[in-house]
Amino acid sequence: MTPDTAGDSGGEAAPGSESDSRPVVYDLAPDCTVEDVDVGANYHAVVNGVVEYGIFVDISDEVSGLVHESNLDRSYEVDDRLTVTLTEIRENGDLAFDVFSASTYRTVVVDHEPELTPIEDLDVGDEVHVEGQVAQIKQTGGPTVFRVADETGIVSATAFREAGVRAFPAIELDDVVRIGGSVESHEGTLQIEVDSMARLDGDDAAETRQRLDAAIGERAEPAAVEPLVEWPAFEKLREDLRDLARLLRRTVLEGRPIRVRHHADGDGMCASVPVQLALSNFIESVHDDDEASRHLIKRLPSKAPYYEMEDVTRDLNFALEGQARHGQRLPFLLMLDNGSTEEDVPAYENLTYYDMPIAVVDHHHPDPEAVEDLLAAHVNPYLYDEDYRITTGMMCVELARMIDPGVTDDLRHVPAVAGLADRSKAEVMEEFIALAESEGYDRARLLDVGEALDYAAHWLRYNDGQSLVNDVLNVGCDDEDRHHELVDFLATRAERDVERQMDAAASHLDHERLDSGAHLYTVDLDEWAHRFTYPAPGKTTGKLHDRQVKEHGEPVITIGYGPDFAVLRSDGVRLDIPRMVSELNEEIVGGGVSGGGHLVVGSIKFVKGMREDVIDSLIEKMADAELDAELTSQAAVDTEL
Amino acid sequence: MTPDTAGDSGGEAAPGSESDSRPVVYDLAPDCTVEDVDVGANYHAVVNGVVEYGIFVDISDEVSGLVHESNLDRSYEVDDRLTVTLTEIRENGDLAFDVFSASTYRTVVVDHEPELTPIEDLDVGDEVHVEGQVAQIKQTGGPTVFRVADETGIVSATAFREAGVRAFPAIELDDVVRIGGSVESHEGTLQIEVDSMARLDGDDAAETRQRLDAAIGERAEPAAVEPLVEWPAFEKLREDLRDLARLLRRTVLEGRPIRVRHHADGDGMCASVPVQLALSNFIESVHDDDEASRHLIKRLPSKAPYYEMEDVTRDLNFALEGQARHGQRLPFLLMLDNGSTEEDVPAYENLTYYDMPIAVVDHHHPDPEAVEDLLAAHVNPYLYDEDYRITTGMMCVELARMIDPGVTDDLRHVPAVAGLADRSKAEVMEEFIALAESEGYDRARLLDVGEALDYAAHWLRYNDGQSLVNDVLNVGCDDEDRHHELVDFLATRAERDVERQMDAAASHLDHERLDSGAHLYTVDLDEWAHRFTYPAPGKTTGKLHDRQVKEHGEPVITIGYGPDFAVLRSDGVRLDIPRMVSELNEEIVGGGVSGGGHLVVGSIKFVKGMREDVIDSLIEKMADAELDAELTSQAAVDTEL
Amino acid sequence: MTPDTAGDSGGEAAPGSESDSRPVVYDLAPDCTVEDVDVGANYHAVVNGVVEYGIFVDISDEVSGLVHESNLDRSYEVDDRLTVTLTEIRENGDLAFDVFSASTYRTVVVDHEPELTPIEDLDVGDEVHVEGQVAQIKQTGGPTVFRVADETGIVSATAFREAGVRAFPAIELDDVVRIGGSVESHEGTLQIEVDSMARLDGDDAAETRQRLDAAIGERAEPAAVEPLVEWPAFEKLREDLRDLARLLRRTVLEGRPIRVRHHADGDGMCASVPVQLALSNFIESVHDDDEASRHLIKRLPSKAPYYEMEDVTRDLNFALEGQARHGQRLPFLLMLDNGSTEEDVPAYENLTYYDMPIAVVDHHHPDPEAVEDLLAAHVNPYLYDEDYRITTGMMCVELARMIDPGVTDDLRHVPAVAGLADRSKAEVMEEFIALAESEGYDRARLLDVGEALDYAAHWLRYNDGQSLVNDVLNVGCDDEDRHHELVDFLATRAERDVERQMDAAASHLDHERLDSGAHLYTVDLDEWAHRFTYPAPGKTTGKLHDRQVKEHGEPVITIGYGPDFAVLRSDGVRLDIPRMVSELNEEIVGGGVSGGGHLVVGSIKFVKGMREDVIDSLIEKMADAELDAELTSQAAVDTEL
Repeated sequence: MTPDTAGDSGGEAAPGSESDSRPVVYDLAPDCTVEDVDVGANYHAVVNGVVEYGIFVDISDEVSGLVHESNLDRSYEVDDRLTVTLTEIRENGDLAFDVFSASTYRTVVVDHEPELTPIEDLDVGDEVHVEGQVAQIKQTGGPTVFRVADETGIVSATAFREAGVRAFPAIELDDVVRIGGSVESHEGTLQIEVDSMARLDGDDAAETRQRLDAAIGERAEPAAVEPLVEWPAFEKLREDLRDLARLLRRTVLEGRPIRVRHHADGDGMCASVPVQLALSNFIESVHDDDEASRHLIKRLPSKAPYYEMEDVTRDLNFALEGQARHGQRLPFLLMLDNGSTEEDVPAYENLTYYDMPIAVVDHHHPDPEAVEDLLAAHVNPYLYDEDYRITTGMMCVELARMIDPGVTDDLRHVPAVAGLADRSKAEVMEEFIALAESEGYDRARLLDVGEALDYAAHWLRYNDGQSLVNDVLNVGCDDEDRHHELVDFLATRAERDVERQMDAAASHLDHERLDSGAHLYTVDLDEWAHRFTYPAPGKTTGKLHDRQVKEHGEPVITIGYGPDFAVLRSDGVRLDIPRMVSELNEEIVGGGVSGGGHLVVGSIKFVKGMREDVIDSLIEKMADAELDAELTSQAAVDTEL
Repeated sequence: MTPDTAGDSGGEAAPGSESDSRPVVYDLAPDCTVEDVDVGANYHAVVNGVVEYGIFVDISDEVSGLVHESNLDRSYEVDDRLTVTLTEIRENGDLAFDVFSASTYRTVVVDHEPELTPIEDLDVGDEVHVEGQVAQIKQTGGPTVFRVADETGIVSATAFREAGVRAFPAIELDDVVRIGGSVESHEGTLQIEVDSMARLDGDDAAETRQRLDAAIGERAEPAAVEPLVEWPAFEKLREDLRDLARLLRRTVLEGRPIRVRHHADGDGMCASVPVQLALSNFIESVHDDDEASRHLIKRLPSKAPYYEMEDVTRDLNFALEGQARHGQRLPFLLMLDNGSTEEDVPAYENLTYYDMPIAVVDHHHPDPEAVEDLLAAHVNPYLYDEDYRITTGMMCVELARMIDPGVTDDLRHVPAVAGLADRSKAEVMEEFIALAESEGYDRARLLDVGEALDYAAHWLRYNDGQSLVNDVLNVGCDDEDRHHELVDFLATRAERDVERQMDAAASHLDHERLDSGAHLYTVDLDEWAHRFTYPAPGKTTGKLHDRQVKEHGEPVITIGYGPDFAVLRSDGVRLDIPRMVSELNEEIVGGGVSGGGHLVVGSIKFVKGMREDVIDSLIEKMADAELDAELTSQAAVDTEL
Repeated sequence: MTPDTAGDSGGEAAPGSESDSRPVVYDLAPDCTVEDVDVGANYHAVVNGVVEYGIFVDISDEVSGLVHESNLDRSYEVDDRLTVTLTEIRENGDLAFDVFSASTYRTVVVDHEPELTPIEDLDVGDEVHVEGQVAQIKQTGGPTVFRVADETGIVSATAFREAGVRAFPAIELDDVVRIGGSVESHEGTLQIEVDSMARLDGDDAAETRQRLDAAIGERAEPAAVEPLVEWPAFEKLREDLRDLARLLRRTVLEGRPIRVRHHADGDGMCASVPVQLALSNFIESVHDDDEASRHLIKRLPSKAPYYEMEDVTRDLNFALEGQARHGQRLPFLLMLDNGSTEEDVPAYENLTYYDMPIAVVDHHHPDPEAVEDLLAAHVNPYLYDEDYRITTGMMCVELARMIDPGVTDDLRHVPAVAGLADRSKAEVMEEFIALAESEGYDRARLLDVGEALDYAAHWLRYNDGQSLVNDVLNVGCDDEDRHHELVDFLATRAERDVERQMDAAASHLDHERLDSGAHLYTVDLDEWAHRFTYPAPGKTTGKLHDRQVKEHGEPVITIGYGPDFAVLRSDGVRLDIPRMVSELNEEIVGGGVSGGGHLVVGSIKFVKGMREDVIDSLIEKMADAELDAELTSQAAVDTEL
């Protein structure tokens, strides 16, 4: 290092220093070593020995040398102070000094710049210095535990002040610090027992931050993976997915937790399970602690087609508890197969303020102008004039592979499951299916896996069902036979329950022919279907609709309604449900109409007492709806109904 | 100490001892020191050395001295036994004995009375003796952990007998014990590794208990805090609050857990959050263990306006599990903004039997004669001819300050939030608001905070939402901006949901003019309002009512009803709902009518099939109700509806 | 041991070995001791000393001896190699060898067969070898922890490779292993710190497995207990119960977790609580770890009268998580007072595949041909032409006593509680009651305990309420008074709630006289009863029915119905509900009729819109039902309604 920049760790020059032409004499800290000195520089020194041929001087506890008697103009005694110039560092390590005599000079204090050890190189028993960014500060009943990330890894550093009392209270999350201490093994995991810890400020901090940032940026770089199938439409999204993969890898490298919220259906599972697997793998490779992935990634199913208040309050409270109790950063929120619409904006606005970055991967019709500014990343085929056919599961398989290419072998069948579950008309569906077939899945089984996921999601309710879902989807499952058996079991039960529901409801379908020529089927699900069981009204309506389409061909509209809701499905008719909802809301005073959907599917809520008005008015509007043979009902109706 | 009382640790004199005139010879335990002996007393001794000028005798392992040859009437050899009298303790510590010769005497065994170390003075490495009361006995897979409280603090003492086997099985919760052992540091927390542990009995126990009790009584003394605003009506309650503060501080000092049940609305939050903060602070100051407050205080929202069976069974089971699994005392139950009525009696009766003391702070109309005997404390303005205008939040801010005056700066705005949330007409409301304004809260924000608390409580359901609620109320929240942002978010969402509900329901209000001249508004909320969302029927009715009052002035009654319930609100009419309910219950056979409330607000339940009868009969009664311009609908209707 | 079998640990002979007539020379592993050698066998040796009278040779690090010079035909130097024959092991332990000279021989490698220490004999500080079967493999952030069971106990063995990295990855659950290591005390529990661990294969494994199996079989043998009362009908079931007791004890000895699912009513509690207590005791006696019973047995109430999908998915996911996270075996599922019917088959099929053995103790009418093949044990009185009168509680008290006879004193009153709760007409009911009376319970209290259990089960919902339930049933409760008080409290509240329900509903009962002469009472519980509280529709119908029977005598049928269900109870009429359900299902298209029950009780579900058709049709069928004075409504209606 160069002494002439060594002292100004505060980054502020002394007043008038620019014009200060006085020579500098360095005052070395006691722990400075020969690495901290330069030939030609001046130092404050103390005599520690007087010999015939000169005097020995200390310029720090670690650095001494000789001033030859030829350079002395007077006699010295031990402990005399003087200033010296370093004239030579000999090959054998000896230092030679001259006396430095100046009538005026200014003193610059020099701290020892210790040799830094990269976290990945720590070994038990070493005395080390580490520089990194603080990712977590957990106060235990005993010591304070700092998780510190440098460009090579993350390690725990424990500092003890008093039982349960915060050590180094000035150090905060995200600070860049230098830690000195000894490396110990605690229950088999390396940790640093802290002797010294200092926050870097000013230029030092900026420099280190820049260095860490660059290194982490490099490590965050996603893998370059070949597409599983060639699909030009998908390629438009690849850069967005790469950006998100980079962001998620960086999030892991910085030690921030990740919370995944996903639509609780087949496609949502096909999206979230691979990403969770890839992130868990990456977390384990970054952290030295096997439990890390359990603390740092959590997947949660969402019942509603938007980020509803109950989920928001819980997530936020959970995040704040994690911060208060474990000193964790607030989590990164990853919304999958959900989260692209205006309905999500208020929640996002709040979370953003809380330093909770949000990213969305979704294939539902987005309100980009509303959400874009609030998101750290937004991947959605509609942003590139593509549509729901590119399912979230398909996107997230690629995303997972970019995060950890090692998961590829586990995922080849997943895009086919996702596509079939969401009834995707993607032009490459057959290729995805062929790819899955090459892994031993035939089309019937792929459909069964989708049904089984849906069925499991229904009964698991708010539970992520981690192990069960992995076995159903056969991702991170080590027993192929078990996967088969489980899918058979769940798919058979799902089918039985659907049959039971069809038996009850199908004979109660009312039929009429609209002026447009479309067939309209309506059914009161409160009266004619089993409630509070599988399949719920949304799926029940879908299944009834599919049967009618299969039997009578298009155009067909089906309405399944209950006391205060209606689910809509159509094939061959352009319904434009959002427009209908907004018209109904204006026309029917006190109807409390709300809802959403797209051209061919949707759901509506209203107050019970206005049901007849709402349904009648809805049917009138449908009678006027334009036929369009191109339009077919797509994914499962996304509704919490 | 005085040897003549030292030996009777059993507290019971030997049979016939009163008339026993034989001299006493003490038999000292081996670890007795010079502190256990008195000049003039007689001791059993053993010769341990024979010298020219006499014999050296041991009267314990620690206490020896000389019998001068001038006092010997025969010769002794080493190990000879004899009885001696202590004649002198010289300045240099030497002891001088005479031979004690008596043809008859009785022996009293003396245990060593070790020097006791106060828990607050424990230091690592010390060998100590501690006396205290057992507050918890936790059997781990390894040692048994005793939590012991003395007059200065609480510490863990670990005793090992065999893995997972209870050490000192005779020692029970609440016993007074003397522990000998060495002080060690376990994960940074001090604990005593037990060498010896004995239960004190009889007089010793009584004396120690008295000493601990006195000291704990002193430490339990609440802080003398100045009222935040001058308010004579409130001062009537101050002594009751001080008594409760003392009781809660004592509960903490004795290591008993505290379980807080509170009404899940704005005022209930304003009551419970400050008390929880103050108690947590105090727990942390008493215990050496940072995790203590997590184990020792738990706050739980209650949906019902009384202590309902589901909560009782859960609390009781939780308490018993804590006792069985962690060896904790059964908790102290603190009911806030809830719990003053007859409806709570059966649960209280049961808990009291279980050694679970109960205290209530409430401002709902109490049934004091029913609950009083069952409560360790009952603070309620109605007990002093005051009323709901003194809200529970206002009382609990003072209570919290008495427990820990350090919380005052965090709480100055809370009484205003509580008062506005519960629509208090307290004469000092403007002063509370001014106080809050001086802390930077204007009236609009105070109202918003109340709404936000209510809204958060709705979505958090049975979760206490600790961190989120603290941020909303800005108590123990370290980020003012975050508080603002969060309140904005929640209040805006709450307002939007209320608007949506008003849009649906308001146009369906039925109006009639009662004979009394009062306006009556009724609405079927099952038909015309959104169900199972925010605002629930109780709040929906309140909001509809407020609008009508604002528009048409008083007197106004509003009834919002569903299939099996009705919510009542009135301004300017004396309804006396409890009387109405009891009349309805008699008049309508098979109506299953129950419910409660006060003069101007209330709720009623009935069986669905009798709804028309109940509502009609209710309206008839209302037609006869006396007008009273003084009466205005007060707090949010306290109902789980 | 015999060297000639020592080396072939792989269990496979060398090619051509059968016909190999060359003599064998053993090559001993360095740690072989004198226990590994036999007189007459040949060994590879090395000279370690040359003396006048011969040479000293080592045949392992531990085994040396002399070849006398009389047996030498040439001179040797230190480190020379040769082959020798062991000729004698002298009394003083000295070994004598001859030189073994053969022109051809084959070498067999001999591993040291260490002396094995039984797990129950482990002591801190010992260096030991243990052989056992792996019952759990838990990877921690530090070492890998293996739970190993031998014929005497279960112990943890910790092996460290690298932090969080699986040690001995080749070792799997259920493998038979030999472990060498030192016994340490970890938080007071013994564990082995592993130095070596090897899987036994082939014959060695088979032999050890056989030995463990035989020993565990012996330890699994249930206790021979005398019946609490003499009851020939019950004796038919005793062997089945013994078999199940043996199976459960074996399950514990092998370290597999047990999950108990039981009907959430009085009889179900009387069945499950004793079994849980007995198994917990046995687990604690087998494991050295006090926490073991918490991890290894879990009791869960089931609301439905069969193993419903929500429970199945949760249990399965929980089991898989336990396997993934704690390396546990998948659990043994024990169904109590539930699980005998065809409805349970699909779930069983799936679980069986997952290596989750299932056993059922039930007294509901079984479908034995459907379930038998899937169950490891099935105890049901109907399998022996007995019926529901032998309640599950009665059976499980005996089962518990066979598992741990020490629980007997705690259980004498339980059969009476179970029998009264389920209205058993067992001929020995009076004897059970007399037995309970001799323990201080009169009939009124026994009924109260049953009511209190039912009431607690209602409010605890999915919580097992361990401590509370134990106190109510007075099993494993150490405070008799508390039990009394708690039962009073709950039974009184239950009675009050039942009264409230009767007050509402009783006056709305519709009466008609059927052609058969039976009285029919019907009531719309949705209209005339309180919903979503205690008592639920099933119990409400039962209580209404009982009143009518008491007032009007038999024959009586009662139907309590709601929007989409009906509950049926009868006395003196042969309804045969399963037949009625299947007829209704055929006759009423789109009715969605399902349900079940027995001759006199049952429940039916249907879609709301078909209620009138279903109820009318049901009543027609009932009008035709044969009277049979023998038939009385038995146990509480088993329905989730």
